[in-house]
Amino acid sequence: MRIVIALGGNALLPKGGEGTANAQLEAAKKAIAKLEHILKANEVVLTHGNGPQVGSLLIQQQGTKEVAPMPLDVLDAMTQGQIGYFIASAISMTGLHSATLITRVVVDPHDAAFKNPSKPIGPFYEQPVRPGMKMDAGRGYRLFVASPEPMKIREHDAISALLERDFVVIAVGGGGIPIKKSGEGLEAVIDKDRATSLLANQINADMLVFVTSVDEVYLDFGKKTQKPIRHMAVAEAKKHITANHFAEGSMKPKIESVVRFLENGGKKAVICSISNIEAALEGKAGTIVIT
Amino acid sequence: MRIVIALGGNALLPKGGEGTANAQLEAAKKAIAKLEHILKANEVVLTHGNGPQVGSLLIQQQGTKEVAPMPLDVLDAMTQGQIGYFIASAISMTGLHSATLITRVVVDPHDAAFKNPSKPIGPFYEQPVRPGMKMDAGRGYRLFVASPEPMKIREHDAISALLERDFVVIAVGGGGIPIKKSGEGLEAVIDKDRATSLLANQINADMLVFVTSVDEVYLDFGKKTQKPIRHMAVAEAKKHITANHFAEGSMKPKIESVVRFLENGGKKAVICSISNIEAALEGKAGTIVIT
Repeated sequence: MRIVIALGGNALLPKGGEGTANAQLEAAKKAIAKLEHILKANEVVLTHGNGPQVGSLLIQQQGTKEVAPMPLDVLDAMTQGQIGYFIASAISMTGLHSATLITRVVVDPHDAAFKNPSKPIGPFYEQPVRPGMKMDAGRGYRLFVASPEPMKIREHDAISALLERDFVVIAVGGGGIPIKKSGEGLEAVIDKDRATSLLANQINADMLVFVTSVDEVYLDFGKKTQKPIRHMAVAEAKKHITANHFAEGSMKPKIESVVRFLENGGKKAVICSISNIEAALEGKAGTIVIT
Repeated sequence: MRIVIALGGNALLPKGGEGTANAQLEAAKKAIAKLEHILKANEVVLTHGNGPQVGSLLIQQQGTKEVAPMPLDVLDAMTQGQIGYFIASAISMTGLHSATLITRVVVDPHDAAFKNPSKPIGPFYEQPVRPGMKMDAGRGYRLFVASPEPMKIREHDAISALLERDFVVIAVGGGGIPIKKSGEGLEAVIDKDRATSLLANQINADMLVFVTSVDEVYLDFGKKTQKPIRHMAVAEAKKHITANHFAEGSMKPKIESVVRFLENGGKKAVICSISNIEAALEGKAGTIVIT
């Protein structure tokens, strides 16, 4: 089976952790250990976010005047190298061969998102210490950047070519580097769930998997009436979105991305945690969404 | 023909330039315009150095305490993303499809180079402003880091797979990320000419090309008796190395790398500038070295 798996930030950079290279590498090793059987039995693309890392790198750009600061599209490219290297290192320990591809994603330069920065990146602060910082869901102040809609994964053909040759492919890191159709970079951070869903359609994946910090999707999440969803069809998923069951910037973009994948030819999507992913892919855990 | 082309720093980051993202992208566009016909007619891997960029990134790691600094192997990975993205953007404008691969290179952790940092990186300073800074060939003070011998290009199989599918492959950036055989990263910057030569052997390239700032190789370079070399055989090249005709850290590692490629199965190597590369590949310019 051809499977696209998006690794959530929590699987690669534990919350409250120091963000050191070693902490990130150890987190990647733990995640890949849980995925080993899946990677060995299938054609797999792994995608990942870059919110904490690209925010940290952005802060470093302003830390010294000795060096020309790089714009956000270049920083996206740099975090693909950084995080991809951690994941590739972890995969090497399983004996599998991986390939980490720098991936660009076409967006519309007139996307309204450029006027309304909605994507929080980087560390949390108790006070806004830089221009553009806003409160992120009550957790602290963070930088906010534009997050336009992904339209086309430019490197989808190279990703397919590598899958056909049995490489575990690491791609679309941080949602991909946003570019215009003509190739010029744009300063933004694309939502990795949306970009992953688009990739899954472009390479005709059999399954789309979102690895997140909860074991499955819930109705009334966090309330007394909270209830896990084990199976749902696209129509139900859309109904629950409309009824505001899913949190903005968290579960909602995942469910929306799942719906989009299934409405554009996908057959099955799974939302689960890294610890239950094997059971979830056997249909015994997680939330399974079908057409 | 399968050709591996190493782009010298000067082709991608003009000396005395600001090092901004835009300056680097424009330099990449100019270089790729000169390579367009070659890329269209052959299977090509492009490699590149990262000395200025990785040094700048290293300085930024120390610019703020808000963010955990990344070690040198991770910085190498980040510059592969950065520079690879610039080159990929330039290639897109030719209509060709490229694939930028994060590339790891196995080195010996006991390599004597780790005790004798010999590779200058980053900007030039009039005074040593940081520990570890030394004079670089009379041009100014720079940071010096270890530069161990490359032993194996880990991603050579993915590179071959992509070449066979007609992608222009960008790989082994900055000489590759130095790792132990077991996969752990090591803090160093590998010489890109040596790593490129090794790659050319590992993927059975027909030709190895070093693009540098001079049109061809010279005997007695810079002296009144200076004389261009248009053709030479491996035996002559070795004789000239012994006679100290080639500068350390500049032409010497290139000629040594050419010799190694030819002694390990390679048939032809070319040293030329970006402006005469088309003529050089037709045998009408540059320095051509054969077995």
